[in-house]
Amino acid sequence: MDNLVPEDNCNERGLNILKKSLACTDQPVQTNASHVFVILGASGDLAKKKIYPTMWALYRDKLIPEDTKIVGYARSNLTMEDIKSKCEPFLKVKDENRSILKEFWTMNSYVRGQYDEKADFENLKQEMEKLEKADQDNNRIFYLALPPSVFKASASRIKETCMSARGWTRIIIEKPFGRDSESSEDLSQHLGRLFREDQLYRIDHYLGKEMVQNMMSIRFANQIFSRSWNRDSLACVVINFKEPFGTQGRGGYFDKFGIIRDICQNHLLQILSLASMDKPPTVRADDIRNEKVKILKLIPPVVVEDVVLGQYVGDPDAKEEEKRLGYKDDKGVPEDSVTPTYAACVLRINSERWEGVPFIMRAGKALNEKKAEIRFQFKDVPGNIFGQRPKRNELVLRVQPNEAIYCKMMNKAPGMSFTMEESELDLTYKDRYSDARLPEAYERLILDVFVGSQMNFVRSDELREAWRIFTPLLHELETRRQEPIPYKFGTRGPKEADELAQKNNFVYTGTYEWIYEDV
Amino acid sequence: MDNLVPEDNCNERGLNILKKSLACTDQPVQTNASHVFVILGASGDLAKKKIYPTMWALYRDKLIPEDTKIVGYARSNLTMEDIKSKCEPFLKVKDENRSILKEFWTMNSYVRGQYDEKADFENLKQEMEKLEKADQDNNRIFYLALPPSVFKASASRIKETCMSARGWTRIIIEKPFGRDSESSEDLSQHLGRLFREDQLYRIDHYLGKEMVQNMMSIRFANQIFSRSWNRDSLACVVINFKEPFGTQGRGGYFDKFGIIRDICQNHLLQILSLASMDKPPTVRADDIRNEKVKILKLIPPVVVEDVVLGQYVGDPDAKEEEKRLGYKDDKGVPEDSVTPTYAACVLRINSERWEGVPFIMRAGKALNEKKAEIRFQFKDVPGNIFGQRPKRNELVLRVQPNEAIYCKMMNKAPGMSFTMEESELDLTYKDRYSDARLPEAYERLILDVFVGSQMNFVRSDELREAWRIFTPLLHELETRRQEPIPYKFGTRGPKEADELAQKNNFVYTGTYEWIYEDV
Repeated sequence: MDNLVPEDNCNERGLNILKKSLACTDQPVQTNASHVFVILGASGDLAKKKIYPTMWALYRDKLIPEDTKIVGYARSNLTMEDIKSKCEPFLKVKDENRSILKEFWTMNSYVRGQYDEKADFENLKQEMEKLEKADQDNNRIFYLALPPSVFKASASRIKETCMSARGWTRIIIEKPFGRDSESSEDLSQHLGRLFREDQLYRIDHYLGKEMVQNMMSIRFANQIFSRSWNRDSLACVVINFKEPFGTQGRGGYFDKFGIIRDICQNHLLQILSLASMDKPPTVRADDIRNEKVKILKLIPPVVVEDVVLGQYVGDPDAKEEEKRLGYKDDKGVPEDSVTPTYAACVLRINSERWEGVPFIMRAGKALNEKKAEIRFQFKDVPGNIFGQRPKRNELVLRVQPNEAIYCKMMNKAPGMSFTMEESELDLTYKDRYSDARLPEAYERLILDVFVGSQMNFVRSDELREAWRIFTPLLHELETRRQEPIPYKFGTRGPKEADELAQKNNFVYTGTYEWIYEDV
Repeated sequence: MDNLVPEDNCNERGLNILKKSLACTDQPVQTNASHVFVILGASGDLAKKKIYPTMWALYRDKLIPEDTKIVGYARSNLTMEDIKSKCEPFLKVKDENRSILKEFWTMNSYVRGQYDEKADFENLKQEMEKLEKADQDNNRIFYLALPPSVFKASASRIKETCMSARGWTRIIIEKPFGRDSESSEDLSQHLGRLFREDQLYRIDHYLGKEMVQNMMSIRFANQIFSRSWNRDSLACVVINFKEPFGTQGRGGYFDKFGIIRDICQNHLLQILSLASMDKPPTVRADDIRNEKVKILKLIPPVVVEDVVLGQYVGDPDAKEEEKRLGYKDDKGVPEDSVTPTYAACVLRINSERWEGVPFIMRAGKALNEKKAEIRFQFKDVPGNIFGQRPKRNELVLRVQPNEAIYCKMMNKAPGMSFTMEESELDLTYKDRYSDARLPEAYERLILDVFVGSQMNFVRSDELREAWRIFTPLLHELETRRQEPIPYKFGTRGPKEADELAQKNNFVYTGTYEWIYEDV
């Protein structure tokens, strides 16, 4: 088996865990260390919807050490019963797992405290020490599920009072990592003074998705693709993110960021760097992240001419009430908001491999479908000998929903006919791997933190480059207060975005429809 | 729609027919010509099993002009009733088509005659004239379903007495086209003196198979494949033909030819030339055949060191009686026969595109399965970064049974695991095109003769090159009386053949199994 586990940052126990997960056995993990997992912001949305459910799934599947203790921390005066009742609607619990769930909750405790009070963190420390044993390594993970305003203070307090004296300490942080180069750099500097890079786990949950994690294998283990992965064969690369719903009451929060910060600068740029980087010398985390940084360095800042922005408006003819409302109808969104809910941006890579191949990102809310995919469009066949030009080949990695890899190709129409038609070579996961359970992105990533694998986390220099690429654009748009183009809820977004793609080598024929028959 | 129909050799009426077939309408064909289709050898096996059933299918599907008349000709004293009762077990007739079948038989007549008697052919001529109209073109097709011994004589008689005075005359001939360069050349010369090349239709029924016909589209309409179709990307190309049954009483006939003449020199070499030729300047028949001849010219004669021969022996442990019998147990096979029923041959192409890429042909009877496929094996990924070498990519065109195109690739094992495994991008026809009927090879080819498309027929210079490649080998084997290696009925053939493939860049890991779930 070709092992993709990077061993450099993994401790032995972590590797055992991962090896166990690979082998899919039910043996308990042998470990001589204790693990405490602290959720700062335990009363919040992220904790209730993602972190507790993830810890439950990992515990249920015996992927983390069995004696891992979980400590919730927040300002509210809560009991464990309160946390349980907030979380349980988001846990997926089968009846046969009810007793494991009961066990799970006994591993949990809660500490109330402020995010900047040293004394409160001392309490947290005492709680952890109660759960740990003196005669072994005591590993600690802190998940900062916190608003930006208390980020820096709580990081300082952890450093002052909560570092493990014997064992490792790891810090998981979530976006937003600032809102431009300057604010991000400020945060990075602060964290950099407190923790080493190998203690910091910046989550971009797109890096936990099956098809994104598969990019390494697809690209570097398949000669048939690696031959074409360059400007000689490809006309353009399109990275699409589409959501069929609007801001749904979160508009007030969203309005401070907009779609470029929310989706393009992080998730789609991560996908882009994995899709375009050169082959790393090894599969170790830092070798991969070096290549990602290298390719990002080759991307000039996005210019306003390469961008189309949109903002959705209600569709008065829609049946569903939600679709009749526009972005500005959402609570907290200013009347005169120019925040884009749709963006198409063209990125260019000034490298030997990619010069002349536009990377087109498109992200939008309130569109016609839910989809995230990466589409490699091949050039036209030169020297065409057929009556009409064959349609272009496309290799598509569908990230969600319904994971798939497929390759659009031209094929003789079966039967007596001598015409050609578009068809596809297909690998749809739910057909091919009908028994496989694809874990949630968060499950993989939190397991990675236990294991000590930083491959799927964003390094500070990656983050810096990502902001370098988007900050000038963001500042210009905000200075100009550029009006986004209105598009109707439930459509493909502004037609100007299609024109932008077309100007950038993308051919959309519209003749082809993926015929997927559910089996 | 990209039209693959070559127009140069097509007459207008033929094109109408084909266009109709393309459009799949039920309109009757408008044609001002009469067509008579003569089956010489009407009492034989080929006529009863293939030609009459094919004419029936074409008639039923209205693919040939409705007033096409069919005249059987043979030495036996037969009535149409006799022909009908011989053929009907081989016609696939649905109940709703019974009345069309009745109609079909009214288009048929029978003429008794010798194959070398001018007077008998005069009778045939009179029969044809009775069926034709004086005021229009009268097109005639002669299918020579005859043993080699009467081939030349009957061709001469046709030329002397049966050529159409107004309209075209076309001659369909079947293998064997001789048994080596000399005898084949003799036959070609004879036919060449009587007919123009555009009147001669040499059938190789592999050229009528869906996936073989698809090769043009796959290769020349898909940039993703054309990039890799060369020595830079491919390690070797394997063309497999496997039959799970022995000679089944035809051993006496087979023994005069052997597997190389029966399968390799014609069918597999045709596939090889379509798989390896350069892109023709147009899709016209002669442009394509020029390229096929060109690539054949670049193949040196096969040498005995590049060949492994086998002859099957009975498997005493087999349940089925048939499998307990070896080749020499079949009636008519000499006790001391050295005729191969299995051959693996390596062909080399001395071209800029292919030097160093072995083309490995393997054909055998009495093997473990029924299969014909073309397998393009890619080179190893250079500069491997994974724990173990990724398995090689393979692009496979499965000709029969169960037509498919699939690409073996490496993929991350879905789920928590970080290992890689082999998977495939798949286009299995019966899933993707569940409604399509794939016509029999003979239906396509006989339709081509009506249409005047010679794309899928073997030109005399192709035939000459094919014999040039195999004749020295065949003569050497026969002079030496080289003993084939015995292999047991129902196995993969001699293991020496696997060793030969391995020596010629083919890696067979045996780790991979195609998991095909019938839907």
